[in-house]
Amino acid sequence: MEFKIDGKSGGARACTIKTAHSTITTPVFMPVGTQGTVKALDANDMLSMGAKIILGNTYHLYLRPGSKLVKKFGGLHGFSKFPNSFLTDSGGFQAFSLGENSKPDENGIMFKSHIDGSKHYFTPQSVLDTQYDLGSDIMMILDDLVALPNTDERIMTSIERTTKWAKEAIEYHKEQKAKGIGTNQNIFAIIQGGTSKKYREISAKQLCALEDYDGFAIGGLSVGEPNQDMYDTVEWTTQFMPEDKPRYLMGVGTPEDLIENIERGVDMFDCVMPTRNARNGGLFTSFGKVQIKNAKYKEDPNPIDPECDCYTCQNFTRAYINHLLRAGEITYYKLASIHNLHYYLSLMKQAREAILNDNWTEFKKEFYEKRSK
Amino acid sequence: MEFKIDGKSGGARACTIKTAHSTITTPVFMPVGTQGTVKALDANDMLSMGAKIILGNTYHLYLRPGSKLVKKFGGLHGFSKFPNSFLTDSGGFQAFSLGENSKPDENGIMFKSHIDGSKHYFTPQSVLDTQYDLGSDIMMILDDLVALPNTDERIMTSIERTTKWAKEAIEYHKEQKAKGIGTNQNIFAIIQGGTSKKYREISAKQLCALEDYDGFAIGGLSVGEPNQDMYDTVEWTTQFMPEDKPRYLMGVGTPEDLIENIERGVDMFDCVMPTRNARNGGLFTSFGKVQIKNAKYKEDPNPIDPECDCYTCQNFTRAYINHLLRAGEITYYKLASIHNLHYYLSLMKQAREAILNDNWTEFKKEFYEKRSK
Repeated sequence: MEFKIDGKSGGARACTIKTAHSTITTPVFMPVGTQGTVKALDANDMLSMGAKIILGNTYHLYLRPGSKLVKKFGGLHGFSKFPNSFLTDSGGFQAFSLGENSKPDENGIMFKSHIDGSKHYFTPQSVLDTQYDLGSDIMMILDDLVALPNTDERIMTSIERTTKWAKEAIEYHKEQKAKGIGTNQNIFAIIQGGTSKKYREISAKQLCALEDYDGFAIGGLSVGEPNQDMYDTVEWTTQFMPEDKPRYLMGVGTPEDLIENIERGVDMFDCVMPTRNARNGGLFTSFGKVQIKNAKYKEDPNPIDPECDCYTCQNFTRAYINHLLRAGEITYYKLASIHNLHYYLSLMKQAREAILNDNWTEFKKEFYEKRSK
Repeated sequence: MEFKIDGKSGGARACTIKTAHSTITTPVFMPVGTQGTVKALDANDMLSMGAKIILGNTYHLYLRPGSKLVKKFGGLHGFSKFPNSFLTDSGGFQAFSLGENSKPDENGIMFKSHIDGSKHYFTPQSVLDTQYDLGSDIMMILDDLVALPNTDERIMTSIERTTKWAKEAIEYHKEQKAKGIGTNQNIFAIIQGGTSKKYREISAKQLCALEDYDGFAIGGLSVGEPNQDMYDTVEWTTQFMPEDKPRYLMGVGTPEDLIENIERGVDMFDCVMPTRNARNGGLFTSFGKVQIKNAKYKEDPNPIDPECDCYTCQNFTRAYINHLLRAGEITYYKLASIHNLHYYLSLMKQAREAILNDNWTEFKKEFYEKRSK
């Protein structure tokens, strides 16, 4: 992976990440393609939208269709036909979100499949094996995530376990690369520590000392804590992260969350929000969020966002989108997902331009002003 | 509407129909877009596929979003942004399929809405008013459809009522056109009579005597009768239909049904089968139907049909389509619907070519031979 910083404005950074499959400019939002496709869209839709990287979920793909099968098709790129980069998570977050259907111990996490109830044990090494098969450009290590708020003891366990696993993972990755496995694949560690300054500092320092990692993520946020706590935690944590490697804030978030965290030095984001909200009728615009099912849009001849140049806004009216949603038409999901993802990708482009022009403060002010009208 | 016969081969005809919105070559299959969109697809998908005409359902669009609203957006063309032709049915078939929630009398049909249970009364005149608002290129008249088998008495009532309504409808349409309403819109009558030669002859003769109609349809088939009965009824009925107007067999059918009925002189077809089957995993190919969810396709690197040049087959493998369906991904519905509709549209193109080359018998033989392998 090549990484360089192209510009800064305040705390915000604009960087370039080059993987074996694409050149990614940051700040970047990675659309979520859990099961080998972004929901309601296909590889060409993502290319048309200009997506340079999408996220796949190791836990889901391991279970179905199975990573060995994906490998036979040339990894996620060959299987889904999306030629740009993939980042795959490790299953750590799924362990968290599966609740009682997962159980971590010192050496890994036991999962109970949400599909058939079968049991599977993930270790720092096994999740890399799965990701070698998936052929992702960026692999995330197995981490131990905790719900917030939580006891100091549980948070400390999470940090220690995550560091232990991170050390095992990077050693294993070096061994595998020496054998010619995963040589084009990059690996990121995940900082834990809840919303505690003390624990975040410990975790960040322990992990960032492992210099073979290609990048570092902040995990364990956006799990129910107040927004300001998330922002403060990110601001505190980034100071312990190396300047010369990508910084990825996992599972975040709203457009506002992206702006706030870009300002705090984050380069990469992912979230199900644009696609999931689209499916529920929540559409993002330059003037804030719109509930397109609302009766006031029934006869509205305007596009979802008159400022938007996405496929949906260039072709269809609010009235038509409102009708498709009310009528339960599958077509709605495609058009709404395209719009919301375009909004996120386009916001990142604008943010990058503002950073390169050292115009961040004004850009951020305008972003909020438009939404308060 | 301009209509001309471009060629014949045996009983099969290749014609050209020119409406205000497109030039349609026949035999033609009209994809069903019940609620203002073909399910899982949008107007541009239909254009990419080369569709020159799609079908909308008057009953559904009248209820939601309402035909007055559609009119405000420039009819179905403006509302859905599909610029080619629309044919709209009358609600007669919905009355039939709603069963106890509809009740015909001498003057029209009472419907109970499937959406909110509200009551609506459709007459031969009111369904035209709705279709004027929808702006369809071809309007179907209100007909009285009966389930098969049925008593002679009920079939005779259906014929008489349909003829009475057809006379009222054509008179009303002439009056409206004189007022400048619906001047670009064409109107088709619908022959009833079950599978009885006697009643089909009566109905066909009565309706086809109404020379102001732009075309004639055969309705009331594909409602559960044996295939051979349908073919025999069509063969018997077409002899009473004018040569110089389009012949439309409503709600039919399988690829085999299309071939058999083209041979019997039918020009136009519509059916939910390609899109509905797609959603249930049933995909049409040159070698017959495929259940793509079948385990044997899990690791199959071939396209759905190696002979197919549709978007889906050009881009994706059976293994990936199988995975998307098993994983419940919305993306599956789009890719499968594109494939199945392309199959139907492409079959019609091949049939036309065979007719123009006076090569029908050989074409039909090959069609069946490929499927029996």
